[in-house]
Amino acid sequence: MKKFLNKVDNMLVESLSGFGTAHADLVSVNFEPTFVTRKNKAKNKVVLISGGGSGHEPLHAGYVGKGMLDAACPGQVFTSPTPDQMLAVAEATHADKGVLFIVKNYAGDVMNFEMAAEMLPFEHATVLTSDDCAVINSTYTTGRRGVAGTVIVEKCVGSLAETGADLQTCKALGDKINQRTASIGVALTSCTVPANGKPTFDISETELEMGVGIHGEPGRRREAMREADAIVGDMVAAIVADFTAKNLPLKGEILLLVNGLGATPLMELYLIYNTAAKLLGAHGCQIARSLVGNYTTAIDMAGASITVCLLDEEIKQHWDSEVHTPALRWGC
Amino acid sequence: MKKFLNKVDNMLVESLSGFGTAHADLVSVNFEPTFVTRKNKAKNKVVLISGGGSGHEPLHAGYVGKGMLDAACPGQVFTSPTPDQMLAVAEATHADKGVLFIVKNYAGDVMNFEMAAEMLPFEHATVLTSDDCAVINSTYTTGRRGVAGTVIVEKCVGSLAETGADLQTCKALGDKINQRTASIGVALTSCTVPANGKPTFDISETELEMGVGIHGEPGRRREAMREADAIVGDMVAAIVADFTAKNLPLKGEILLLVNGLGATPLMELYLIYNTAAKLLGAHGCQIARSLVGNYTTAIDMAGASITVCLLDEEIKQHWDSEVHTPALRWGC
Repeated sequence: MKKFLNKVDNMLVESLSGFGTAHADLVSVNFEPTFVTRKNKAKNKVVLISGGGSGHEPLHAGYVGKGMLDAACPGQVFTSPTPDQMLAVAEATHADKGVLFIVKNYAGDVMNFEMAAEMLPFEHATVLTSDDCAVINSTYTTGRRGVAGTVIVEKCVGSLAETGADLQTCKALGDKINQRTASIGVALTSCTVPANGKPTFDISETELEMGVGIHGEPGRRREAMREADAIVGDMVAAIVADFTAKNLPLKGEILLLVNGLGATPLMELYLIYNTAAKLLGAHGCQIARSLVGNYTTAIDMAGASITVCLLDEEIKQHWDSEVHTPALRWGC
Repeated sequence: MKKFLNKVDNMLVESLSGFGTAHADLVSVNFEPTFVTRKNKAKNKVVLISGGGSGHEPLHAGYVGKGMLDAACPGQVFTSPTPDQMLAVAEATHADKGVLFIVKNYAGDVMNFEMAAEMLPFEHATVLTSDDCAVINSTYTTGRRGVAGTVIVEKCVGSLAETGADLQTCKALGDKINQRTASIGVALTSCTVPANGKPTFDISETELEMGVGIHGEPGRRREAMREADAIVGDMVAAIVADFTAKNLPLKGEILLLVNGLGATPLMELYLIYNTAAKLLGAHGCQIARSLVGNYTTAIDMAGASITVCLLDEEIKQHWDSEVHTPALRWGC
């Protein structure tokens, strides 16, 4: 394993310290317990807090700022943050209209955010993101995983919260976007968790993992490596099928997000976008909004995910509104 | 080699097509010859045109838009664009105040932009970027390479050109920034050029290449892999020494750019930033502006570069001004 690090145990603190210095105009970083807040505490609004294991940067700390999250609590790499982090950050940011947790659907995150919620002295609610259509709901798993679609939830609910909307209205928009969003990822290589020092899974030069999770969880199947058009074709078909299964036909305006998992060049992401856009256009979609880049990563995995969000006027309006965070910025 | 591509020969066209679709509100992509222009042609200003081999995305096409470049001409991966591309794009964008080429200092790019310039029927000038302090000027090489500092030149000269400044004033600012900027890169892995199908150079699990170029050119030396603080310490020392050698002491306000070369996680880039910021602060610098992310890449290389620009009020003003491109956006 070759990585830019000193002691593995210090990696998160050193990286977050750099993040805090680089974006000192926007965010404040707290340690013991670890959390990231906006530099200027918001007033009289629903407070949006997300969090999860590190290694998915810029998710979530990179989305703290005006128009998006109020705070994030990062855990160690691929490790859930603890309830005391969540409680402390809620107390530090609460702005008299309640707390909305945005939680990706993983067992550890769900359990810890639930524990924190039970102890919270404020009104609270949770939006659970589960956009990964690679994994079918099952009684044997915690179900669909939250992946890059979480960025769309955080952006749009963040916009709504700035308008002074109440807690249940914010939660309802988050749940609606999650319902109207599907993602699927593919890995060409494994990620390497620094504390493990070796790749999470083995994959040969002639294989890919279709439906991989953002921690390197197994996907739908191990497949033979092939041309991008064929890979992207299968990814788009899985997304279309997911909308069909939800009885929500994929027609009309969509947001298309092509997300790099960490080590995939932008040139390849745009090539994936090109194919996905053509296929979705042929399916009857109009690509009204686009985002291409590394927005929800899996450390250093070579791979990419495709996310489609079925837009409506409300979602579009909140996607377009002003946002000023370290990783997403427009309108200001 | 595992990459998201179809036929290697079609990779650039497919990727640029996706880029053009994803950013259709900002840019237009032309083929035969290949160039990228702003969607809305600027009027009555110096036109800024850059270009070079592909594989460094978002450089340069990602910086086409208001407040930055008017156009870019991408070559094949790591291959200079041709004079006919440069001529065609100059003719398509010329806005009555002359053409400024921004060229990274590589033999092929320099030669082709010179050939194009000779044929240009408009007033023209060139800013040659050469911020890479890993390579000392020598009669045996084309000298210092242009690397990530080029982004700062393109941003600030782009801002100045929007004000209606004349050609020589724009060139002078570009030359000044280049003179006040130094960069150095380090590679942990090689990049893989798609048409070659194998890594450009061999490097073991226990080595790094200090001073690597953005095409995988050799740097100062092959070294033993070690802790990030030690690596970053050597990089910062090389930058400080470069300013000293230029008789331009590195004190006061700086812009610190930590740039990923393609496959390095953001978490590591912020860790590098953390160390670099501390060292530069201890040296007497005030880090007034920061940028951390993938801005000038080497395809899929794991590695990073550090760029320091010694600010003055003029550079700071043009750095801060409104910019709206696919890859850099603020103030609008």
